[in-house]
Amino acid sequence: MTKIRKIQLNERDMPKQWYNIQADMPNPLLPLLHPGTKQPIQPGDLEALFPMALIQQEVSTERFIDIPDEVLDLYRLYRPTPVHRAYNLEKMLDTPAKIYYKNESVSPPGSHKPNTAIPQAYYSYKEGVKKMTTETGAGQWGSALSFATNFFGIECKVFMVKVSYQQKPYRKSMMNLWNGSVIPSPSMETNAGRAFLAEDPECPGSLGIAISEAIEVAATNEDTKYSLGSVLNHVLLHQTIIGLETVKQLEMTGDFPDLIIGPFGGGSNFGGLSFPFLRYNFTEGKKTRCIAVESASCPKLTKGKFEYDFGDTAGMTPLIPMYTLGHKFIPPAIHAGGLRYHGAGAIVSQLLKDKLIEARSVDQTESFEAAVTFARAEGMIPAPETSHAIAQVIKEAMIAKEEGIAKTILFNFSGHGLLDMGAYDEYFAHNLKVQ
Amino acid sequence: MTKIRKIQLNERDMPKQWYNIQADMPNPLLPLLHPGTKQPIQPGDLEALFPMALIQQEVSTERFIDIPDEVLDLYRLYRPTPVHRAYNLEKMLDTPAKIYYKNESVSPPGSHKPNTAIPQAYYSYKEGVKKMTTETGAGQWGSALSFATNFFGIECKVFMVKVSYQQKPYRKSMMNLWNGSVIPSPSMETNAGRAFLAEDPECPGSLGIAISEAIEVAATNEDTKYSLGSVLNHVLLHQTIIGLETVKQLEMTGDFPDLIIGPFGGGSNFGGLSFPFLRYNFTEGKKTRCIAVESASCPKLTKGKFEYDFGDTAGMTPLIPMYTLGHKFIPPAIHAGGLRYHGAGAIVSQLLKDKLIEARSVDQTESFEAAVTFARAEGMIPAPETSHAIAQVIKEAMIAKEEGIAKTILFNFSGHGLLDMGAYDEYFAHNLKVQ
Repeated sequence: MTKIRKIQLNERDMPKQWYNIQADMPNPLLPLLHPGTKQPIQPGDLEALFPMALIQQEVSTERFIDIPDEVLDLYRLYRPTPVHRAYNLEKMLDTPAKIYYKNESVSPPGSHKPNTAIPQAYYSYKEGVKKMTTETGAGQWGSALSFATNFFGIECKVFMVKVSYQQKPYRKSMMNLWNGSVIPSPSMETNAGRAFLAEDPECPGSLGIAISEAIEVAATNEDTKYSLGSVLNHVLLHQTIIGLETVKQLEMTGDFPDLIIGPFGGGSNFGGLSFPFLRYNFTEGKKTRCIAVESASCPKLTKGKFEYDFGDTAGMTPLIPMYTLGHKFIPPAIHAGGLRYHGAGAIVSQLLKDKLIEARSVDQTESFEAAVTFARAEGMIPAPETSHAIAQVIKEAMIAKEEGIAKTILFNFSGHGLLDMGAYDEYFAHNLKVQ
Repeated sequence: MTKIRKIQLNERDMPKQWYNIQADMPNPLLPLLHPGTKQPIQPGDLEALFPMALIQQEVSTERFIDIPDEVLDLYRLYRPTPVHRAYNLEKMLDTPAKIYYKNESVSPPGSHKPNTAIPQAYYSYKEGVKKMTTETGAGQWGSALSFATNFFGIECKVFMVKVSYQQKPYRKSMMNLWNGSVIPSPSMETNAGRAFLAEDPECPGSLGIAISEAIEVAATNEDTKYSLGSVLNHVLLHQTIIGLETVKQLEMTGDFPDLIIGPFGGGSNFGGLSFPFLRYNFTEGKKTRCIAVESASCPKLTKGKFEYDFGDTAGMTPLIPMYTLGHKFIPPAIHAGGLRYHGAGAIVSQLLKDKLIEARSVDQTESFEAAVTFARAEGMIPAPETSHAIAQVIKEAMIAKEEGIAKTILFNFSGHGLLDMGAYDEYFAHNLKVQ
C-alpha cells in the first residue's frame, strides 16, 4: 500500500469553535491577583490593556466558544494545516513508533502564532482599537501580530528582545512588510526600558522586559491596547484550533496519540495541540501523556516554583499563579528566543501541579542536533523552539524502540527556521553555547 | 456561501505521469548541435554530463512518462501543493477577475525546484553517480538539489552566482544543512572561473558563468554528473507535475484559466504550470493565453533573437535553438537571481516563435511594488522572481476591470521570499535600481 505522508483536512471541515479546557479541568484555576491590592482582579481591572471580548474569554468556563466568521475567513489563508507522518525519521531511527507532526509552519509568518493574533486583532478592531503593542522574542509573535493587524488597519508596535533583534534581522523586515514597527527592547521609549538600561546598558533583553515596555505604552495611551502571544487563557483558547483539527486528522488514520510533545515557552503551541486531546483524558478515560519541552536555560517547569508571580519583569501585570523562575530572571541569549520566558501560563501550571501533564528540558546543542537530524530526514527546517520538541520526540522514539512498542507520538511543528539560519551556521561552526 | 480559499488535492489523486509537450507541439524542436562539429548531437554526446535516463527524456516524444515510485514518494513530502484563490487581492484591486495561484513555495527549499531535483538525483543514483555539480542564481535551485541529493547519499557541489551569494547568505546555510557545498562563482576552482576572474576580478557572476564552472567539474571527473535546474526539456517535463495537479484542482472549482502567468528565467516554472493547459489549446481548441514574465534587465524573450546559442558563458554546452541575448551577456545584479539568464529553453522558445505563448517584461521596482501589495493582501511573501509574475497579474486584473470581464487568471507562486528579506529592506530604503 502507498504510504500517505500528509493528512489534509478540507476547509469545510475546519472546526468552527475553540475548545476551552477550563470547562473540564479537575481543579479550577486560582484567580489572578491585582498587583496593588493582592485581591482577585475584576474584569474591569484589565480593560485598560485588553478588549472586553478577550477579558471575557479569559475567565470563561464554557466548553466551546464560537470562532467569528471573519476570523475563520482569515484562518483559511493558511488553515487547515497538514498533519505529516514522519516516515523518513521513523526509518532513520529504526523505531517501531509512529511519528506524526502537525505542521503549523505553513502560515505566512511561519508559525502557529497567527491563530491567536487574528482573533486578537479582530476583537480589538470590533471595539474600536487603533493601535496595538506587544513584545516578541525570536520574532514569530511580532510577525504574526503585524500580519493580523494589517488586515484590520490597526497600527502595530512591537518591542523585540534586543538579542533576537540582532540575531534575526529578517524578522524585522517581515514585520515592516506587514506595516508593523519594531523597537529593540529594552528601549529608551518607556520608563521601564530606560530603567533597565540604566541598570545594565548591555542588557540583552528578555520577554519579561519587553512585556513591561509594551504594557506601559498601552496603559498610558487611550487608543492603544496590549496583546500577548502566549501565557494567557484566551491565547491558549485560540490555539486549540491546532489540536481540534488534529483530532479530526488522526481519526482519518485510525491512530490515537499515546504521547503528545510540544515546545514550551509560555504554553500556547503546547496547549493548543494538547488540550483537545487532554479533554479525552478528563472525560473518556484516555491516557495520552502530554509533555511540554522547555529550554534547559530557562527551566521554569522542571526547576521553577509554583507561586504567584508577575508576568513581566517590571511587575506591572496581575499576579499569575504559575511555575516561575522569578520575574527578574533573565535567561541566557539562546537562539530559541520564544522559550526565553521566566514563567508558564496559569492553565498549564495548574495541570502540571496536578500531574496531568509532564515537563522535560532540552539544552541548546541537543536541540540543534535534533533539528539537523529532522531536516535531513524530512526536509523541513525547524525553528529553534520547535527543535526542542523534536529532541524529545527522538528520545521517546528510542525508548519505544528499546521497549519494542509501536507507540503513536504526535508533536507540534510549531514553526520553521528559515529566518533562523544564522543559528544553524553557528551550530555548524561549533559556536553555540550548550545552554 | 463560504469562500473556499484553498483547493487541496489528496495524495492519492496526485498525477503519476509527467506530461511531455513534445508529443503535441505543432512544430517539432530543432535539434541541439554539437559545439565542435555543429552537427545534431547524439545521445552519447551528452553521457559525460547526464545520466542516460534523462538524456532519453530530453528527446522523447511520448506524451506521458511514468514518474518512478521512489520519486512519487519523495514528492509526497510536500506535494500535492495547494491552489489558492486570491480573494483578498481581487477585492483590493476591485477587479471582476478571478485570481488563482498554485503555491509551489510549500516545498522545504521553498520553491518548485525540487520537482526536478528529486528525479534528477534519483536517476543519477540509479546509474551509480556519486557526485553532482550545478549552478544556482538566487539559491532556489542549489537548495533544491542539495535537498534531493541528500536523500540518495550523493555529494552535491553548487556554484552560486557571486552577487547572490553575497545578497542571500542564508541560502548557503540551507544548502549546508542538507549536506550541499557551496562555492561563489566565478571561482578559482575551475579553468573557466579563473579565466573570468582574470578578465574582471570584480565580476558579479551570472548563471551562464556558473554553468560553465559546474559543467567543467562534471566533464573532468568520472564519478560526477552535472545537473541543470531549468532550460532543458527533461527539466520542464518534470515540472509539469505543477500544471497536472492544477488541472485537477481547477476542475473542482468549475473554472478554467483564460490566462496563465509565470515568472521566466529559463522556463521551468512557467512551462511546468502552463504546458498541461496548453495541451488543451493544441488538442481541444481551448484558447488559454500563457504569458511568460521576464526581468526587464534580462529581456531575452521580448528583446532577444531566436538563434542557436550556447547555454553557458564559456561555450561548453551544445548549441540550443533559443531566444537569447548572447551567451556573453551578463545581467545587472538584480535580486531576482533566478531570472538572470541570457537564454530560454528550446521548447518555450519554439512556442514563442510560433506565437503559441506570449512574453512580457517587468522591471525590478515594479516587481517589488507588486510583491508588497500581494504580501499585504494575501499574507504570503513572494520571492523576487515570483513577484515579476504578480506584477503582470495585477496589470491583467486591471485590464479585466476596464473591460468588465470576469476572466480567470492563474499564476505560479513559484517560491517564497523568506530568504530574500534583505531585498525587501532595500526596496523600502529606496536603494533598489529600477532594473
